[in-house]
Parts: sequence; C-alpha cells; structure tokens
Amino acid sequence: MLQFSLREMAKFLSVFSVRNLLVLSLALNVSLVLRVLVLHDSQNGSFNGFFFEKQNGPQEEAHASKRARLSSSVSSSSSSSSPLTMAQGDQDRVINLDHGDPTMYENYWQKKGDETTIVIPGWQFMSYFSDPTSLCWFLEPEFAKQVVRLHKVVGNAVTENRHIVVGTGSTQLFQAALYALSPNTEAEPISVVSAAPYYSSYPVITDCLRSGLYKWAGDARSFSKNGPYIELVTSPNNPDGFVRHSIVNRSEGILIHDLAYYWPQYTPISSPANYDLMLFTVSKSTGHAGMRIGWALVKDEDVAKRMTKYIELNTIGVSKDSQLRAATVLKVISDSCERSDEEGDSFFEFSYHLMAKRWKQLREAVHQSGLFSVPDFPPQFCNFLNRVFEPQPAFAWVKCEGEIEDCESFLRGKKILTRGGKHFGVSPKYVRISMLDRDNNYDTFVERMSTIQS
Amino acid sequence: MLQFSLREMAKFLSVFSVRNLLVLSLALNVSLVLRVLVLHDSQNGSFNGFFFEKQNGPQEEAHASKRARLSSSVSSSSSSSSPLTMAQGDQDRVINLDHGDPTMYENYWQKKGDETTIVIPGWQFMSYFSDPTSLCWFLEPEFAKQVVRLHKVVGNAVTENRHIVVGTGSTQLFQAALYALSPNTEAEPISVVSAAPYYSSYPVITDCLRSGLYKWAGDARSFSKNGPYIELVTSPNNPDGFVRHSIVNRSEGILIHDLAYYWPQYTPISSPANYDLMLFTVSKSTGHAGMRIGWALVKDEDVAKRMTKYIELNTIGVSKDSQLRAATVLKVISDSCERSDEEGDSFFEFSYHLMAKRWKQLREAVHQSGLFSVPDFPPQFCNFLNRVFEPQPAFAWVKCEGEIEDCESFLRGKKILTRGGKHFGVSPKYVRISMLDRDNNYDTFVERMSTIQS
Repeated sequence: MLQFSLREMAKFLSVFSVRNLLVLSLALNVSLVLRVLVLHDSQNGSFNGFFFEKQNGPQEEAHASKRARLSSSVSSSSSSSSPLTMAQGDQDRVINLDHGDPTMYENYWQKKGDETTIVIPGWQFMSYFSDPTSLCWFLEPEFAKQVVRLHKVVGNAVTENRHIVVGTGSTQLFQAALYALSPNTEAEPISVVSAAPYYSSYPVITDCLRSGLYKWAGDARSFSKNGPYIELVTSPNNPDGFVRHSIVNRSEGILIHDLAYYWPQYTPISSPANYDLMLFTVSKSTGHAGMRIGWALVKDEDVAKRMTKYIELNTIGVSKDSQLRAATVLKVISDSCERSDEEGDSFFEFSYHLMAKRWKQLREAVHQSGLFSVPDFPPQFCNFLNRVFEPQPAFAWVKCEGEIEDCESFLRGKKILTRGGKHFGVSPKYVRISMLDRDNNYDTFVERMSTIQS
Repeated sequence: MLQFSLREMAKFLSVFSVRNLLVLSLALNVSLVLRVLVLHDSQNGSFNGFFFEKQNGPQEEAHASKRARLSSSVSSSSSSSSPLTMAQGDQDRVINLDHGDPTMYENYWQKKGDETTIVIPGWQFMSYFSDPTSLCWFLEPEFAKQVVRLHKVVGNAVTENRHIVVGTGSTQLFQAALYALSPNTEAEPISVVSAAPYYSSYPVITDCLRSGLYKWAGDARSFSKNGPYIELVTSPNNPDGFVRHSIVNRSEGILIHDLAYYWPQYTPISSPANYDLMLFTVSKSTGHAGMRIGWALVKDEDVAKRMTKYIELNTIGVSKDSQLRAATVLKVISDSCERSDEEGDSFFEFSYHLMAKRWKQLREAVHQSGLFSVPDFPPQFCNFLNRVFEPQPAFAWVKCEGEIEDCESFLRGKKILTRGGKHFGVSPKYVRISMLDRDNNYDTFVERMSTIQS
C-alpha cells in the first residue's frame, strides 16, 4: 500500500514542476487584477434586498443601484471624517449597509500575503468522505484540529467532550440543530423562540418550508405556551450587540447558542462559553463569508449524529475545498496570536483596533447629527486581550430619535440602505447597520450620518 | 480605482515569491503523502449506512468494517479477472459498493497533474457575493461560463435562454426546485412522484422536514390523485440506467429532470436535453464529489429566482472556492475534448473506455456465476463520441435469480455491501451496485461475484 502511494506521489511530483507553478501563478495574477477591478466596481455601487426580508429580489435592487452608480462619479477613497473633505461624487452614492458582508477584513489578509494561500491539486479531496470512522464523516480532520486550537488560544469556548459538526455556514447548522432537537414523536411542531430584537433570518428560515417538526413562535419574552420549546440565544446579539442569556427558563426548554460574534474584536471574552450546542462561523470571525463554513460544538452525541444526518440529507456534506481553506486561515490566526510580540500582526489586535476606530467615528457622527442614538455598553475585562473595553459590535443598532417613525425609509432617503426594526420584531424607529464594510464605504457612511439634520 | 488595484496587486506579487510557492508546495506534498496513505487505508476497509437509508449510522458500520479490516491482510492490487489469481487476503475483505463515491476518476486527474491545480490567496473571494447584478448573485461568473462551454462541447443540454443556478451539489438544487415549484397558495402539500425504481434519496429528502409545501407520493406509475403534482424524471435512471421520460403526463404536472448521468461515459448522447428544469452535478460528471457543486439549467425566470431564494435561505449561497475549482476542472475537460488528436487525453474517452471495460468484466462475472442478471440496453448512436454503444451506467442494477429473495442480505454474506431494491420502491431481489469505485475494489468485487454459487 505504501509502495503504491509513493509511486503515485512521485508521478505527481514529476509533473508538478516549478515552471508549472509559475505559469499557474501568473495566470492567477491576471485573473486577480480583473477580480480586484470587479470588486471595487461592485463595492462602489450598492446592493440591497439580501438575506431574506425584502420584497424585491436582489437583482431589481442591484439594477436600481447600478443606475444610481452610473449617475454619479465615484471617489475611490475618503479617509477623513470631516464632511468638508468629502469628495463631491460621494454625496450621491448609495451606501449599502443592510447586510453584514465582512469585506472590512480583506486588508488584513492582503497584508498577510501568501501565508493563507491554498493550493489544491485536481485529483485530491474527490471523495464524499473526509473520515468514514468519524461521527461527522464529512468533517476534514485538519479543520477540526484548527477549530479546537483557535478556541483554546482565544478562550471563548470549551471544546473538551464536544463533537464538532461542520456546516455550509452556521445558517445550515442552525437548521441542522432544529432538525436534531425537534421531538419527532410530537403531533404538532415544536415552538422556536428568541428574544426581540432577534436575528431577522430566524423566523424566515424556520418557517420557509412550513415544517411539521418546528414552527416560529416569536419573541421569547412573550412566549407562554406549555410544553417543549427551542430558544435561540445569540450572544453577543444580532442586531443590538448585547450579551444575552436565555429568557424563558422553563424545564422543557432546549437552547441553541449562536456565538457567531463571540470573538475579541467585537466583545470582551469573559470566560469560555460552555453550553450544550454552540454555533460559530468563519464569516464573522475571520471575514471569509464566501467560504460558507461554520461549525457547531455539540455536547450530546445523539444530537451531533442527527445534525450530521440533516447535512447528509440537505447537501451530502460540506465543501472539502472550503474546509481546507478555512483550516489554513484559522491556523494563521492562531499563529498570529501566539506571536504577540510583533506589533500589528495579531489578527484580533488588528480587528479590535479597527472596530474601536469605527465605533468612535460612529459615536462622533451620531453626536454631531443629533438625530440618532446608539446603545451604550458596560465595559468589561477581556481575558484574551488583557484589557477592559466596551463591546464594539459588528452591527450598529441605531434609533431615530424625535418624530421619525420609519428610520429605514428616512435613511434610504439619504441613500443609506439599512435593515429596519420590524424585521427584528421591534419598532421601525430602529435600524441595523453593518459595521464591517470596506473603509471606503464605511467612511462615506459616517461622514454622511454626521451631516444629517431633520 | 485602477491605480489602487494595481498597487495592491504589486504588493501581493512582491510577497508571493517563487521561494514561497516552493515552500507551500513542499508542505502540501508532505500532507498529500499522508492523505494518500489515509485514502488507501479507508479504501481497503469499508463503510456503509451512507446516504439516507440504513438504520445504523455511518460510524457503527465503519467501526464494524474497521474490525473486519483488522482481521484480514490486504492486497493492494488485483488486476486480473480470474479468481485463481485473487490475493489470499482479499477473500475476507468487505467491499462497499453501497454508495456511489466516484473515486474511479482519481487516476485520470492524477495523470493530468497540475493542469487542474487551483491556487487561492487568503484575501480573495471573501464576500458573500459573486455578482450582485446577476439573478443568482452567488454564482461565480467563471463557473457559469465553463458550464455553458462544456454543454456546448458535449451537446448534452441546451443552455440558450436558460438561467444557471449553482447549488451545494444537485441534492440542494433538488430541494430548491421543490421549494420553487410548490404552489404556496395550496392548503395541502403538492404530491412528488417518480417511477419505481426511483433514486432512494428522493422520498427521504422530500419528507425529512414534514414540509407543508410538498409531500412524497410514491411510484409515478400508480399515481392517480387529481390536481397538480411534481414528477422527478432521472435519465439515465438511478438505479437502473435506462433512458426515461415522464410517466404521468397530465396537464397539471410539473417536471424536474435529474440529468446527473447524462454524460457520454455512461450513455449515448442522442440530442441536447431541452427541458424546463434540468439538474447536473460535478460528482458524477467529473468525479469531484467532495466539492459539493451542482448546477440547474432553468427556463422560467421566476422559478430560477425562487430556487436562488431557497439556497439563500438554506446556506446563503455556495462555496466560492469549490465553484472556482469546479470551473477549472470543467475547463480542462472541455480543453481535453477539443484536443481530440491526442490519444487517451480526452476525459470522456478515458472514462468511456474504463466504464466499457468494467461492464464487460461484470457481465462476464455474472455469466460465470449463473446466480445473477443485469439489464440489457439497446445500443444507440452517440453524437459526441461518434459511435454506437450500449449504455454503461454508473450503477449496476443486479437481480438475484432463483430462490434468493433478499439480494442485499445475500451479498452482505459474501462481504459485498450494496443497496437493496426496497430503498428504490421495488422488490428486494434487486440491488444497486456502484460501478465507480477505485480499480482495486472494483476488481476484487467482480472476481468475487464470478465465484459465487448458490
């Protein structure tokens, strides 16, 4: 067996020459130049109707914003926070902060250069299986190893005696958890609740197939039905960034903890989370949303098996390519944290400081305008960053003060696209605004906010 | 904007040196040697309970076969078809042909060397979006381009006036199609039917969430309910390999054509398929099951939009990394077809000849044993390969003749794991056997079949 493998290996190596790698690399570079052009083009335009809530499809909105883009000249950079220095063209540009596309992180990964580059030969990772002897047979062992290591380095979750289930983003894992936790003996579907304001996708995903297993039952605070229920606890919370605990607290409750934002760039890490079922995703931790990779840490073996079953039924596993890429990215983050002597190299130091700067900018803009408010958070000690700081969430939960009843429409009139409070189960006086867009868009946004008068 | 892009590009190129590429490549090679060892280890053991039907989970079966593996010595190769030359240890080895893991194709891709190797820098493809202006906003344009090109080269499907929707395998696209085609105004779920023997996963996937939108209604041949229905037409059919057309033929029927096996290595390409909704997957066309990439060709714009919506709700899009890798693989296949002068280079010539050899081996073994039968197929002219041949399906649909009532159990007693007829809605006298396993396993299988006596 060994002999066969090494023979095949030698054959592979003999064709995989330095010259070939260079040709590949050059071809890639040409496509990257094109890609950068495209990225910046779509960045300067904007886009809406994304992630479940809007009536119009993405394409209508995109066409609308394409028209808006064509009718304005676009400045490629605007780093000052003073409205006086704002480029002329930026005044008309639509800024889309409705969805949480984490493109802010691109700069860091560009600076890291080839450390996170992956190379996959065409004949590798072809099988459905990653490890047939593992409970989660489509989980790449290297990805699992790097998940455990990163949680140890950051100290944000207990991984001992946990099963890891990989998913096509934490969205798929949320559905896998609903499937796994629903008592399939019940005649009627189990109630699924979360305290408002809750993540706007929860109700839509839960009810989209009219499942007989589970059913959205709204705000956890007003939930009074007897019997078993599933409570979703998002902490820090999407949209408002507050640390959360379960609300209902009855004996028949089953909890799913969505910890997508429990990372030190967003909130102080007070202790390792230690719940029965915890969801994480690379989208919000590392910024690689395009990979569609999330993971669950699951205490109960049967629940982990049933979650695995759901993913088998739904997509027959999870992209190997993206798992391998995610493993590389998580490894580089852990490495960067352990080399803490090099200034600015640590991923979480970089992203912590960027979020701190953006929140300072936003609070100044809100103060200058006088029309809005944002939440105040109590400062806490972060065991990982070894300092006290206030949470600086991935979304700003902005309230229109005074007479403005529909904050989303009001801001849309100012060409700022946000997601209104009604999607999160609360008043339309609130909007959720992504804090993770590229510098260019974010700076234009805060400049514009600071000048808005009633 | 251009200036910015080129500056960033130059920065990227300056760190991405030849030395770095070599270090990367070497690190990769070490991991590949390990991976090859692991692959051949898991190949020689075997595994069952996969893809939806079995009572035992994959891990119990894997542990069982691990034990079986430990108790037998394993021959690494057995290329002769005569039982006399069979290695001693192979007699006790469990051969798992229950699932259709297309590992047979690894050899071809190894021979192609670095042509299909992909390199992805860490800062690329981070956004959720591939093309915000496209109907399917998470579809990578290069992947879409290569899908269209391959269908043109092979002539197996019409792509003009079609929308392409990419999915996490065609399994997700099947669910997206059910979601998109279900009339959401109906009080009761729409019936979903397929003629038996039908793909064993259809009923399980359709009913797993007890959806109020759609419901499995069994064999299309006995379907007599009035009103709208969805009929699944798999052609060539899984499990039996026959060319199929719709059965029910009533005015309120909506058709989904699953064309996963409509490629020239499996069946003559008689004309470009021209249906309203057609599903394809890389798993069975190129062998890259681990990528989890499929695509749908959809005539109706609203249906394509609703399928896109389902994938947005289910997984917020599809891995960019795997789409890019799939684009590269499809491109290399099209290139190989257009360079038809080079003997043995064309992907479909290679795989056609391998399938022809395997079917010849199987028919000989079945004849030698006298206990089994396999279907006979009428020969047809293939416009792509420019020759007449009989279908040589990806699965063998084997019938136990005589007194054997449960063919799956009978073969399990011979340490051959297959999937029994009852999973496909027919008699347990039938089993489905994968024809796509590695040479080593396939050769041992046919040798063993030829010696089975009642």
